[in-house]
Amino acid sequence: MPYVNVKVTGGSEAPTTEQKQQIIEGVTELLARVLNKNPATTVVVIDEVDMDNYGLGGKTITEVRKLAK
Amino acid sequence: MPYVNVKVTGGSEAPTTEQKQQIIEGVTELLARVLNKNPATTVVVIDEVDMDNYGLGGKTITEVRKLAK
Amino acid sequence: MPYVNVKVTGGSEAPTTEQKQQIIEGVTELLARVLNKNPATTVVVIDEVDMDNYGLGGKTITEVRKLAK
Amino acid sequence: MPYVNVKVTGGSEAPTTEQKQQIIEGVTELLARVLNKNPATTVVVIDEVDMDNYGLGGKTITEVRKLAK
Amino acid sequence: MPYVNVKVTGGSEAPTTEQKQQIIEGVTELLARVLNKNPATTVVVIDEVDMDNYGLGGKTITEVRKLAK
Amino acid sequence: MPYVNVKVTGGSEAPTTEQKQQIIEGVTELLARVLNKNPATTVVVIDEVDMDNYGLGGKTITEVRKLAK
Repeated sequence: MPYVNVKVTGGSEAPTTEQKQQIIEGVTELLARVLNKNPATTVVVIDEVDMDNYGLGGKTITEVRKLAK
Repeated sequence: MPYVNVKVTGGSEAPTTEQKQQIIEGVTELLARVLNKNPATTVVVIDEVDMDNYGLGGKTITEVRKLAK
Repeated sequence: MPYVNVKVTGGSEAPTTEQKQQIIEGVTELLARVLNKNPATTVVVIDEVDMDNYGLGGKTITEVRKLAK
Repeated sequence: MPYVNVKVTGGSEAPTTEQKQQIIEGVTELLARVLNKNPATTVVVIDEVDMDNYGLGGKTITEVRKLAK
Repeated sequence: MPYVNVKVTGGSEAPTTEQKQQIIEGVTELLARVLNKNPATTVVVIDEVDMDNYGLGGKTITEVRKLAK
Repeated sequence: MPYVNVKVTGGSEAPTTEQKQQIIEGVTELLARVLNKNPATTVVVIDEVDMDNYGLGGKTITEVRKLAK
């Protein structure tokens, strides 16, 4: 019954449906392999966070991306 | 001042406005009854998670629902 | 597969083992009754937060409790 | 590497882009000043929660706002 | 700057130091491989939850383990 | 009714009681000033995470600190 929450940027950087499947499958497999956790009750939630709502280094990712151009 | 976060699937499985009221009222009442917590400062947040972003058993709920049909 | 996280104060205010069972049972039953969620995969996590680490009204609960005496 | 999550009401009460920048900058600065944390790896995530999904005092904020009118 | 939170049971089921390293390394590598995320700012937090505080199927894991014996 | 969760390293890097008061006061004041939020119902929770359970760059902070010596 592990619970995993993954937060990544959304919008133009949002993962595709296939990438989300790979994340969920990969995390569940990792916990089964390393900790012998039961995949059947492993819950994974992916949050796609708007780039205006995600901060790193005191700036929104929107600002970070502009500065990086 | 308890804080409660409830994550359920959204989209076609999203709770109605009335169901959300019942969840918030029910959780707040439960904490008041069992733990004698003050309802006035009990905070409840319901997250409706896209079925592509919610994983169980290593698959997205979108896939789980397809397989169950 | 709902996921519920409940945060309450710990230490001298920590819930007993029996109260934690009642919270877990009550939340799971509420989601089954209101939203028809499957109890078998409903995950509940209770966090007991130190009163120095829990803030309300800009003060720690340790301070709040002192002022209330 | 501190991680901070801020949940506030969204919709008609949602913070503006400029307010979100101020929250991210302010929280990052606070952790650097008080705890000497490195701003470069401080992550802040702001969640805007629908007023139907946010509960206080056993009611949704939608209901709370109606009663306050 | 992805943020990942992993919740597993603690106490007698707690992961070892080496297993925690493997979880952190594995999750970070997965996000780099699938989503091309920068490992340098990927934050992972593992919570070890007491078996009395972790619920599945409306029971604490402490109860679940007793019934399984 | 904003809810804020702050995660920082614990153990030998844990904030003091006074620093925790400053974080709780500072965050609450920031949300009141920028977003006009009511301090009375602002909830802040500080999590002190063991350095073996906190990962950055694919390594635990325990490892990161050793490499930095």
